[in-house]
Amino acid sequence: MAKKFAELEARMSPEAREQTQALYHQHLQEMPLHELRKAQALSQETLAKALNINQAAVSKMERRTDMYISTLRNYIQAMGGELEIIATFPDGQVKIENFAHK
Amino acid sequence: MAKKFAELEARMSPEAREQTQALYHQHLQEMPLHELRKAQALSQETLAKALNINQAAVSKMERRTDMYISTLRNYIQAMGGELEIIATFPDGQVKIENFAHK
Repeated sequence: MAKKFAELEARMSPEAREQTQALYHQHLQEMPLHELRKAQALSQETLAKALNINQAAVSKMERRTDMYISTLRNYIQAMGGELEIIATFPDGQVKIENFAHK
Repeated sequence: MAKKFAELEARMSPEAREQTQALYHQHLQEMPLHELRKAQALSQETLAKALNINQAAVSKMERRTDMYISTLRNYIQAMGGELEIIATFPDGQVKIENFAHK
């Protein structure tokens, strides 16, 4: 796996490599769920309707620090997004596909 | 959010943009958990010891299609990786930070 990433990066110019890293990191701004919902201009009520639960349940979900992957996926999908589970290692990143086809 | 990504991409040359996307997508190869473990040259037994569970429990975990985020994080960390939860929208990606500090 390490070899693959290394080869890929070796084919890029230093400038392209730098830009890639900058873009990559900027793409991944961190946000808690409730802020992400607000960024999508959605209320807890709207999301609750889409998930077929009540507003209090959405509020509770947004305060959780752990939940089932399927629960999180439903929440993200109700906002129009897709959940991706990534494992980051010193030599690269891999998308975990066990949970991809629920 | 859409504006931010658009601005960022607008500052890049078409070549850099193309390379970025190619690298980004190639970085994210998909893999199920058991293949990821093998790619790290780890056996179920080794991982079981690191997680303080038995080998059968690791085997069972690798066959699950849903689990708690904390369970998955422990598994990834035992392999020397870090779990990242990403929400992908048509206009960009956001890292979900609710689960980041367990």
